[in-house]
Amino acid sequence: MPELQQLIEDLVAANHILYRHEIVDGYGHASIRHPGKPDRFLIAAAIAPGRVRADDILELDLDGNIVSGTKRPVYLERFIHAEVYRARPDVNAVIHSHSPTVIPFGVTDFPLRPIINQASCLQSGVPVYNSRLVPESTNVLVDSPATGRALVAKLAEHSVVLMRGHGNTVVAPDIRDAVARAIYTERNAKLLLQTLALNRPIEYLDPAEVETKNTGRQQSGPNLGVERLWQMWLDEIAA
Amino acid sequence: MPELQQLIEDLVAANHILYRHEIVDGYGHASIRHPGKPDRFLIAAAIAPGRVRADDILELDLDGNIVSGTKRPVYLERFIHAEVYRARPDVNAVIHSHSPTVIPFGVTDFPLRPIINQASCLQSGVPVYNSRLVPESTNVLVDSPATGRALVAKLAEHSVVLMRGHGNTVVAPDIRDAVARAIYTERNAKLLLQTLALNRPIEYLDPAEVETKNTGRQQSGPNLGVERLWQMWLDEIAA
Amino acid sequence: MPELQQLIEDLVAANHILYRHEIVDGYGHASIRHPGKPDRFLIAAAIAPGRVRADDILELDLDGNIVSGTKRPVYLERFIHAEVYRARPDVNAVIHSHSPTVIPFGVTDFPLRPIINQASCLQSGVPVYNSRLVPESTNVLVDSPATGRALVAKLAEHSVVLMRGHGNTVVAPDIRDAVARAIYTERNAKLLLQTLALNRPIEYLDPAEVETKNTGRQQSGPNLGVERLWQMWLDEIAA
Amino acid sequence: MPELQQLIEDLVAANHILYRHEIVDGYGHASIRHPGKPDRFLIAAAIAPGRVRADDILELDLDGNIVSGTKRPVYLERFIHAEVYRARPDVNAVIHSHSPTVIPFGVTDFPLRPIINQASCLQSGVPVYNSRLVPESTNVLVDSPATGRALVAKLAEHSVVLMRGHGNTVVAPDIRDAVARAIYTERNAKLLLQTLALNRPIEYLDPAEVETKNTGRQQSGPNLGVERLWQMWLDEIAA
Repeated sequence: MPELQQLIEDLVAANHILYRHEIVDGYGHASIRHPGKPDRFLIAAAIAPGRVRADDILELDLDGNIVSGTKRPVYLERFIHAEVYRARPDVNAVIHSHSPTVIPFGVTDFPLRPIINQASCLQSGVPVYNSRLVPESTNVLVDSPATGRALVAKLAEHSVVLMRGHGNTVVAPDIRDAVARAIYTERNAKLLLQTLALNRPIEYLDPAEVETKNTGRQQSGPNLGVERLWQMWLDEIAA
Repeated sequence: MPELQQLIEDLVAANHILYRHEIVDGYGHASIRHPGKPDRFLIAAAIAPGRVRADDILELDLDGNIVSGTKRPVYLERFIHAEVYRARPDVNAVIHSHSPTVIPFGVTDFPLRPIINQASCLQSGVPVYNSRLVPESTNVLVDSPATGRALVAKLAEHSVVLMRGHGNTVVAPDIRDAVARAIYTERNAKLLLQTLALNRPIEYLDPAEVETKNTGRQQSGPNLGVERLWQMWLDEIAA
Repeated sequence: MPELQQLIEDLVAANHILYRHEIVDGYGHASIRHPGKPDRFLIAAAIAPGRVRADDILELDLDGNIVSGTKRPVYLERFIHAEVYRARPDVNAVIHSHSPTVIPFGVTDFPLRPIINQASCLQSGVPVYNSRLVPESTNVLVDSPATGRALVAKLAEHSVVLMRGHGNTVVAPDIRDAVARAIYTERNAKLLLQTLALNRPIEYLDPAEVETKNTGRQQSGPNLGVERLWQMWLDEIAA
Repeated sequence: MPELQQLIEDLVAANHILYRHEIVDGYGHASIRHPGKPDRFLIAAAIAPGRVRADDILELDLDGNIVSGTKRPVYLERFIHAEVYRARPDVNAVIHSHSPTVIPFGVTDFPLRPIINQASCLQSGVPVYNSRLVPESTNVLVDSPATGRALVAKLAEHSVVLMRGHGNTVVAPDIRDAVARAIYTERNAKLLLQTLALNRPIEYLDPAEVETKNTGRQQSGPNLGVERLWQMWLDEIAA
């Protein structure tokens, strides 16, 4: 099953890349849908992302139970991943992080909209999950299937959902794209904050531009688009 | 006395972690209450935190005198630690730092309130110690038992007290938690400053959410909560 | 042909310097005009700038076709370079980047003007290329000769043109100067943004001052002006 | 002459420390007054500060001429140093830098005042040198004895003078203190800018507090005050 091995390597690398780019610190987690079993996903045991190795990856079912590998402590918020995979067949990778600069957009009603073309995943809209408005929730954490479902309801068909006072969740067709989306969501948030200092009308990305870009990405070959970034990121974490 | 050895190792590591995360620079200091003698505390001799080693740790009494180890220069502001330990039996670790982004909140009357769940230690309130209003004080430094007591009176039952034009003091039940509080106080300050650029109403952390979270932390096992961060921080300073 | 070898070494170094200074990430590219054939330019194959080596450098004609070296994937936006070399005989080096802090000035109408003397290349004006207003354009990328010409029309006689939601393009008489211009354009943008926080009238660089400075630069010898920077940058990427 | 050797070592270290703390980049320079000849000063040949070694240090007279060592290119702005040493017998060390965050305060009329106690050197006031208002000046650079004198007239009895669109000049009784002043001037500028985001009245440092602090510093022993910082900085550049 070489495809699975490659995916697990990618998942481990994703953890390290996200740590190096300060999208995650000691908290946050990344997962992939199992390539052969759509109702299973792969995610590390409950350790800091920068420390994850291949033998820390566990296989979980959509109720958040470990179904293979040694019994080890798992992330309290694994229901984020489980419920996304249950509701969104188009998604094969999920990242939950405390991406710093999305916080301001989660604790106010200022919309996080894209101003750079690499953040086109924000174009369809970026909803905010506010745990205080979720009856099933007792705190900001998504620590149950019910709160997982509430988060996924908020995410709807989008790529990114902010979580008030907490961070965000990013979904994508594959883990490399998910990492790119997480990194450029953070960068777009930072640049948008800076742009506001200019106190002038802002020209956001145009839906038409985004559509063309996405089509272009589908046509990318090796070392183009996200692949070019991925090879650089692998170099960075190997250094 | 293996517990003491472990605590001293933790204290040395805390110094290095705080330096690496730029909470302290050449100034600032961390201490722990002596595990066997509640009226003694352990703190480094007067050297920069990033350079502290186990044999730099001295034992002081609550008047700020060295009671064991070689006679060496001690921190001028050791009274911060002494007076906290005298007044707060619940506290076993104290960090005084020049944490950069708390400065703006100490020189204005804008309250530092939590917007991220890791900064729940700020929920009860963050008072500001203004040396100018303290009769016993001749400068911003807490360099006497009297100014130490004035600082502790301001701290009251809280976890963090800001010091105008100077930095802050963070207290906790143990040194690992104190480091987490210091790091996330800085991060929360930075994110709150950025949030203000959006010029919209801010939804701060909710007291109910915090209470649940604190309860949750009590139930944490190895590699959960602060322990997960601590293992990562140890890796970082060893790299 | 030792001159060509030196120029290719400089071009490779330029890629690494721009990466180290975070002017480029996985995207962005630098080129030089061929020293012996004015209608040819040298640019890397489509890989991340920080990974470029001498044997990745290709020779392209002004229609963007590879004319020497192995057939390899090329940058989609090579037309930026081709059309600049066609229209501007004074230019021998071009850098296209996603230089982060120029973004705010590209998505608003706030003019990017110089406030530091190292950014004197901004003095004549910094136009903004808005792909949305270019009939030949279907997205923000400059991926055709027609959009390349539109960008160059906007650049006109200036040294820097911003690209809305995308980045900028910097041109210079040689690659070392182009790197300096790219780095100090980013720094000037950052400092100008910070200056706006003061909410006071800003005294920009004076045209007369710039003219003198440029004259001075012409008289620079080894290790003066840009040469001093270049030697430092070489040390940095070798470290 | 062991004192001279120690001072030259300190001067070389100062160059590296300022580079590591990003107070200087490829430009900027530090000097010390010759300990035995008050009308001479020691400064590096015209190379980037981070690359300076002991054998790059030249001895210059107060007209800016090399009086010992090999004839090598010297800094165009050596007159900053020469004229400070001529006018200020209390000064034995001078740093000219492009310290980034002082720029906003040099291009507006917003006063740079101290909000942290380590920046007490700013308490007496921070004048701004505006080359545009200096008849002898043709550009922002201080490249002649006449502009050097104009800068020093602006500096007057203070410790720091800003230079519009350019950077600042910091003076001190010795080089270690000068480095501390340069670093904390930058930090204070950064924190003051951030504080302005809170849009509330600011409580600046109090003159009385500063006086006490300065007295305290005079009484510092080894590893106290600036000495503690210096040992840490030496560790950092050795790493």
